[in-house]
Amino acid sequence: MSQRIGFIGLGVMGHSMAGHLLAAGHPLVVFTRTREKAAELLQGGAEWAASPAALAEQCTRVFTIVGFPEDVQQVYQGPEGLLKTMQPGSILVDMTTSRPDLAVQIAQQAAQRGGQSLDAPVSGGDRGAREASLSVMVGGPREAYEQILPMLKLMGQRIVYQGPAGSGQHCKMCNQIAIASNMLGVCEALAYACHAGLEPETVLQSISAGAAGSWALNHLVPRMLADDFEPGFFVKHFIKDMAIAADSANKLSLDTPGLELALRLYRQLADQGFQDDGTQALFRLYQSGAVGRS
Amino acid sequence: MSQRIGFIGLGVMGHSMAGHLLAAGHPLVVFTRTREKAAELLQGGAEWAASPAALAEQCTRVFTIVGFPEDVQQVYQGPEGLLKTMQPGSILVDMTTSRPDLAVQIAQQAAQRGGQSLDAPVSGGDRGAREASLSVMVGGPREAYEQILPMLKLMGQRIVYQGPAGSGQHCKMCNQIAIASNMLGVCEALAYACHAGLEPETVLQSISAGAAGSWALNHLVPRMLADDFEPGFFVKHFIKDMAIAADSANKLSLDTPGLELALRLYRQLADQGFQDDGTQALFRLYQSGAVGRS
Repeated sequence: MSQRIGFIGLGVMGHSMAGHLLAAGHPLVVFTRTREKAAELLQGGAEWAASPAALAEQCTRVFTIVGFPEDVQQVYQGPEGLLKTMQPGSILVDMTTSRPDLAVQIAQQAAQRGGQSLDAPVSGGDRGAREASLSVMVGGPREAYEQILPMLKLMGQRIVYQGPAGSGQHCKMCNQIAIASNMLGVCEALAYACHAGLEPETVLQSISAGAAGSWALNHLVPRMLADDFEPGFFVKHFIKDMAIAADSANKLSLDTPGLELALRLYRQLADQGFQDDGTQALFRLYQSGAVGRS
Repeated sequence: MSQRIGFIGLGVMGHSMAGHLLAAGHPLVVFTRTREKAAELLQGGAEWAASPAALAEQCTRVFTIVGFPEDVQQVYQGPEGLLKTMQPGSILVDMTTSRPDLAVQIAQQAAQRGGQSLDAPVSGGDRGAREASLSVMVGGPREAYEQILPMLKLMGQRIVYQGPAGSGQHCKMCNQIAIASNMLGVCEALAYACHAGLEPETVLQSISAGAAGSWALNHLVPRMLADDFEPGFFVKHFIKDMAIAADSANKLSLDTPGLELALRLYRQLADQGFQDDGTQALFRLYQSGAVGRS
């Protein structure tokens, strides 16, 4: 019989991911802030828990994917949090992109309760969640990772163990740091092409396969050119991630001027009211000439 | 009978490119600042010209690939330059990465002499030159482009007409601008991974195929990790290109803070004596903690 699983956080990502666990035959217990978001899963056979604490009483395997580090704190460490009631031998897996130091703290608290926790943030977006093709970066005790691996495989395709608690979050920070500065380069190259009177599509033909090539150049420039700023990944969430990365780099005594510049420009974009756009909306700043100098 | 071709500039790039023209059966006349660099081609049947002006008297198709915009000025506009003696109907093709406004000026001067010029900078590095797989970005009169295309095909694989005079250089600037900021992201992501105690190779497994993926992440991080700072593309040449791009963006009234930051850091790297390293050596600044804040 398949193992009973708890799942907390049924946003765009979590809803798809929980659905894969249910579809694979796992009895599922769910909790999310807005109960209506659980309707489809409940109809599909999932059970409802009144709180994270209530859920942890019933499940020794729990996945969470919520919004901000404060939400993670609430779900794990709050008055009705998972850590309050978790059973010995339980494994709690946080898939939110969150603070590495919070992941380390939760791991210590879980261990004190006779259980374990993993930090396992993902990349691949809503499409990756829907198609179960996510990249999952895992930190925590290796034996807990191995026990959870079959379940992670139901949600992702590229699942990599990165090291002790916090390492999954740190790896995700590397991902966001690489993206941050590259977004500047992609927007500036496109803005330059437009200002110089070139055909941007023709420029892409010349440069996308070479040393300037990147996922963002190939996937986001066509959207920028089409004035399509619909969110694949929200500006507001990218700002959250970059702020965590900048804070974490600071704690590691590492200067990251490219990241800081990107964070500043994205905050400027959000201040102009575009926080619910996709990250490609950074091009708006360059279009409007509002970007300013470094 | 194959058309007689002039070729000026036999550095790492030019030597391979001229060799392809010769190998295809074109009678070749060459000039380069350091005559010894021509030895192999002369042995292979190429003829020597005493100056650009002497070369332009003998050839109505001329390719040039030299170092800096000042070299281009010397070769085209100098007292013994190509423009002094070029024959009506000639087509001059500058493949140096150089100033877009200089390309426009040369195009006007060539037209005044009854000829035409193209700006056709390349990407793909010494390997692309050797394997005739360069990307060539062409600006200038379209009919001149069409006449020259069969020769460009002997040197490159991706040959794209970008528009009127200067457009090839502008396109190359887009390429360098995209690379510039991405190098910051790649170095910062790698430095973060090292500071956080992750295994960088394992981090790459998680992030290289997704939204953070880029040519630089895949090709340059392994060299950074191996302390291999041998030049694929020289720091000093990248600084030249970025300075042209920044100046050109400025003339186009476009702010490019990412490019400016990258240029500043690369200049700092050169000031430390690493101008003859490859561009991946930017990682040295992050390793040494000398990068500073934006």
